[in-house]
Amino acid sequence: MRAIDIIRQKRDGAALSDEAVRFFIDRYTAGEIPDYQAAAWLMAVYLRGMDERETSALTCALADSGAQLDFSFLGRTVVDKHSTGGVGDKTTLVLLPLLASAGVTLAKMSGRGLGHTGGTIDKLSCIPGFRTELARDEFARQVAETGLAITGQSPDMVPADGKLYALRDVTATVDSIPLIAASVMSKKIAAGAKGLLLDVKVGSGAFMRSLSDAAALAALMVSIGKSLGRRTVALVTAMEQPLGQAVGNHLEVIEALQALRGEGAADLRDLCLHLGAEMLLLADKERDFAAARHRLTSLLADGTALQAMRRFIAGQGGDARIVDDPDRLGVPRAKGELLANSDGYLTRLDARAAGDAAMALGAGRKRKGDAVDLLAGIRLYKKCGDAVSRGELLAELFSSGPETIAPAAALLETAYAFGDSAPQAGPLVLERVV
Amino acid sequence: MRAIDIIRQKRDGAALSDEAVRFFIDRYTAGEIPDYQAAAWLMAVYLRGMDERETSALTCALADSGAQLDFSFLGRTVVDKHSTGGVGDKTTLVLLPLLASAGVTLAKMSGRGLGHTGGTIDKLSCIPGFRTELARDEFARQVAETGLAITGQSPDMVPADGKLYALRDVTATVDSIPLIAASVMSKKIAAGAKGLLLDVKVGSGAFMRSLSDAAALAALMVSIGKSLGRRTVALVTAMEQPLGQAVGNHLEVIEALQALRGEGAADLRDLCLHLGAEMLLLADKERDFAAARHRLTSLLADGTALQAMRRFIAGQGGDARIVDDPDRLGVPRAKGELLANSDGYLTRLDARAAGDAAMALGAGRKRKGDAVDLLAGIRLYKKCGDAVSRGELLAELFSSGPETIAPAAALLETAYAFGDSAPQAGPLVLERVV
Repeated sequence: MRAIDIIRQKRDGAALSDEAVRFFIDRYTAGEIPDYQAAAWLMAVYLRGMDERETSALTCALADSGAQLDFSFLGRTVVDKHSTGGVGDKTTLVLLPLLASAGVTLAKMSGRGLGHTGGTIDKLSCIPGFRTELARDEFARQVAETGLAITGQSPDMVPADGKLYALRDVTATVDSIPLIAASVMSKKIAAGAKGLLLDVKVGSGAFMRSLSDAAALAALMVSIGKSLGRRTVALVTAMEQPLGQAVGNHLEVIEALQALRGEGAADLRDLCLHLGAEMLLLADKERDFAAARHRLTSLLADGTALQAMRRFIAGQGGDARIVDDPDRLGVPRAKGELLANSDGYLTRLDARAAGDAAMALGAGRKRKGDAVDLLAGIRLYKKCGDAVSRGELLAELFSSGPETIAPAAALLETAYAFGDSAPQAGPLVLERVV
Repeated sequence: MRAIDIIRQKRDGAALSDEAVRFFIDRYTAGEIPDYQAAAWLMAVYLRGMDERETSALTCALADSGAQLDFSFLGRTVVDKHSTGGVGDKTTLVLLPLLASAGVTLAKMSGRGLGHTGGTIDKLSCIPGFRTELARDEFARQVAETGLAITGQSPDMVPADGKLYALRDVTATVDSIPLIAASVMSKKIAAGAKGLLLDVKVGSGAFMRSLSDAAALAALMVSIGKSLGRRTVALVTAMEQPLGQAVGNHLEVIEALQALRGEGAADLRDLCLHLGAEMLLLADKERDFAAARHRLTSLLADGTALQAMRRFIAGQGGDARIVDDPDRLGVPRAKGELLANSDGYLTRLDARAAGDAAMALGAGRKRKGDAVDLLAGIRLYKKCGDAVSRGELLAELFSSGPETIAPAAALLETAYAFGDSAPQAGPLVLERVV
């Protein structure tokens, strides 16, 4: 088998054998296939595509490139959840303690934010003392002992994906559905959960801009998950406007705490209950969606979920007092306001522009490894459909340095559009793929 | 301008601006764009194509990457000829002295053979003393003083093409019509001739297997040549069976000498007269094709062309006595024969298989830089349409070492097919593109 023959086959639109995919990934990871051959192959994959079987084979080969976790010794279904990335998406911060309080065992391996989308690990980094990087055995022990743990991607797991992703990033081969699916699923497979809930975001603030692309990605990931023995469900959910009211790390932690009290923005609460109910079903803790949702509503209302958050934070070394005293997360030094300049209804609040504004404040990173201002972010006081009066507060902008406020506010302003009547609200969950 | 944006544009099927093409090639040649980005770009070009304007821009950018020759001070049309490569194609060896004897000024920069196709520089290397590598100014002086010079590709000319070709070779992006056209034409443009005759081979022994691909390549190269101020004519010619009787370097020199005497294989003679007449027209030495062909026929018949060959060889330091005493080229130590095993007519003599057999004898190189056995080769005693009796000699095989004879003979045997009647002979020149 030779790399150039595998490149040629994919160039000519053939489906690669499982052996060819594994050969290519194994040799590339070992440094025996050079970057330039992998780059040509990636572009051929980008333009010629991969079918389900090939993408499963790629997922397996990536997962097998490093260490993997196996929780089968626990004798219960460990569940994981993945979002393809959005703006203001703090559902994981709510769902982990909420589901734990319902008796679900959760093992979450998570990434840092990139571009206009945030990452759960960055958000948790706001909590003093919280250890976001657990060694592989420590992570497994924490899951076994407390039923809930989260950690950043371990460097000895799925190394091929890290290497391939870095190459995709500089060769314009990132937004390929099979490459995205294999990258996501390889990390989920290696992390060992047997039940997977995938939240595939679609809209201006998501990587997938069209419903058909998002549905195709969801279907492909579900098919891969099943073919590799994982119970997998995907929801395609709207990401046209930011989720909830907060965009930016420490603001999102504060909003997640509100949600765990059963308070706060309706869209965030709604999505958390929807995703959470699916996860209860995946974990075999409920058989009926409505019952599952009802149970989660109670756990939010009676303080059980919030108590699970305290335990979760303390369990990973964090200061659980932030739950009742969010100022311990830090207080931003600079602040600005964006006011409405007309009367009417808010008809658009573009998630991508809001995410870019938050990044301009310092809340996100342009490139892997960039530093992030954990206190930077935006609090949105109006969402699509809300009535607005001229001079009313639309949003507050926060940052550690005053110089970023004005340019970010100018960016944020482009996110808004107003009209004479309230637009019809679309559903948050657009499709369910099983 | 950024490399990744140019990759993305081509990936998405856009036509690149001249500036973008030049930026990419300039930065790649300077080492500022890495191989992996160039590899992704090449695959995108391979799969998305390039239009005529883009390919012209690429040709220019490649030509401008190094030194270029300019013969305009001579005040006469300098002519060059290029073949896309075939098996047994020794027309250049005949045409250079033949055209020089007709008063045409020729400046030929030529390559070495690769794969199953031969290269003129290798063939001339058989002649004792012949200097195939002239420095750029020496080459220009030789053209100016004697009206005829040939040299291998100078390393300071078109360096971008050399670098890009090496990358195409390992990324399965060689056989792309725009990339081939730009590679060929950039070298022709840099070599300074104002009149270009392109011989685009089509058939089993050529890089282009289909007439439509060959015609498309011919049309694209003619269009590029014209857009860059070169008088350009392309002929699409048949390469289903080897040209003439000899395949292999020293055998081809001997056959070229025969042709310069007006003797030898009819197909070789015919093609030389056809190509040569076109070159006479390009050089404004004749206005009528039939008259041009007639003039060349006379120059072969009366010994003028052969005398020009002696001058040409001597002019580049070679031993002109080989013209009358070909044994001075060397005598192969090993020899084998292939006999017919049935009666009938030869219906197929596959050029590719014959080329592969010659390579197995040591006449060609698998990779750039491999050594070549200049005395290895095949002499074909029967061509398509000839009647054959069982036991009759089909071909002789020559080599410097006896161990290559048997495997090469087995390969060569696969080139032949026989039938009960002579197949209809097709034309040698299939299309003319101006």
